[in-house]
Amino acid sequence: MLILVLKFTIMNYNPINFSEKFNQFSDYWKPKVISEINNYQFKIAKIKGEFIWHTHPETDEAFIVLNGEIKIEFRDGIVKIKQGEMFVVPAGVEHKPSSENESQIMLIEPRGVVNTGENKSSNFTYENDVWI
Amino acid sequence: MLILVLKFTIMNYNPINFSEKFNQFSDYWKPKVISEINNYQFKIAKIKGEFIWHTHPETDEAFIVLNGEIKIEFRDGIVKIKQGEMFVVPAGVEHKPSSENESQIMLIEPRGVVNTGENKSSNFTYENDVWI
Repeated sequence: MLILVLKFTIMNYNPINFSEKFNQFSDYWKPKVISEINNYQFKIAKIKGEFIWHTHPETDEAFIVLNGEIKIEFRDGIVKIKQGEMFVVPAGVEHKPSSENESQIMLIEPRGVVNTGENKSSNFTYENDVWI
Repeated sequence: MLILVLKFTIMNYNPINFSEKFNQFSDYWKPKVISEINNYQFKIAKIKGEFIWHTHPETDEAFIVLNGEIKIEFRDGIVKIKQGEMFVVPAGVEHKPSSENESQIMLIEPRGVVNTGENKSSNFTYENDVWI
């Protein structure tokens, strides 16, 4: 007797879980890439305290707050962004992010953007394209 | 006596609040633009029930679930994405999103992407570049 077994394989794809990713690191101000669309990257970071003034002359930069509340200072003003909110810093606009307590954020921007912008040798400058 | 008043104006910039945006509409499967970086758009949508099979040949598409749980079927598998998770559907991959109950999602993709992909005249096809 010939038994024909047809096996249909359904792949279970895995989503990217933000909490699981945040649990994998504890350092501040060091954005880690978690995903890409085309040549744009999704990076997450824990931040606390004050960052430096810097600019990304070549690109807008999106900040989404996933946990906590952050502040971004501009030369002419300020924005407070809390969990469930986002803000886009336009290209060329000088800005200084900070967070009184630890916050968890996601950045969306083109591949290759340096976290400290034109200040490529600041103490805060972090290696690019680090994936977790 | 001369009194000199120096007035320093500090602008309070407003973040984009996802809940406030979702409160402004109730229709399903009609992505609304809430922000842009360069030529990429952030769109939010309420979804419920089953969408149609479609493809975006020209671009990857990021799904972030802000509330609820959604499912995306592929010809060879499936992914479940819940609040606090994201998934990127690669360019050219046929997919069919669905959500048993109402979910709130954010899409990130280049400006000009049609929600039903190559099916530009489906009942689900929605006007592009609608901002809220």
